[in-house]
Amino acid sequence: MFIVEVKVGLKKGVSDPEGANTHKSLELLGFKEVASVKYLKVYRMEISAPNEAVARERVEDMCRKLLINPVVHTHEIVFL
Amino acid sequence: MFIVEVKVGLKKGVSDPEGANTHKSLELLGFKEVASVKYLKVYRMEISAPNEAVARERVEDMCRKLLINPVVHTHEIVFL
Repeated sequence: MFIVEVKVGLKKGVSDPEGANTHKSLELLGFKEVASVKYLKVYRMEISAPNEAVARERVEDMCRKLLINPVVHTHEIVFL
Repeated sequence: MFIVEVKVGLKKGVSDPEGANTHKSLELLGFKEVASVKYLKVYRMEISAPNEAVARERVEDMCRKLLINPVVHTHEIVFL
């Protein structure tokens, strides 16, 4: 059993209102040291597979079929 | 300059509809090997601070004041 995180972010140039608004709110609260905020979504999955290579391939397939919109999203697959 | 991720999840017992729906959709698409899906939000910040201990303290403060609802959320601070 593997624990895998799929981190979904936005491509450069795609607007990130959640990140921008969080940044603005932090500034208003006095956290002036924050230079930028990016917002990402994470799907943390438990997945059974014979080995990590197979698991990674299956997760890539899930990204293509459901989790990711390649027009706007970047993604990263991390095994914990 | 530090790059910090604040990972916000839901406490045990708090319903996670985004995770549950993703799990169901993956199953319908034939990904039967997925045992569970949890949905998390991540704020990835660039923050300037004299050292990591100070940065961590400031980020904890941001969590308390803005990012986290302690009634339903768990959080994790990760330095990249």
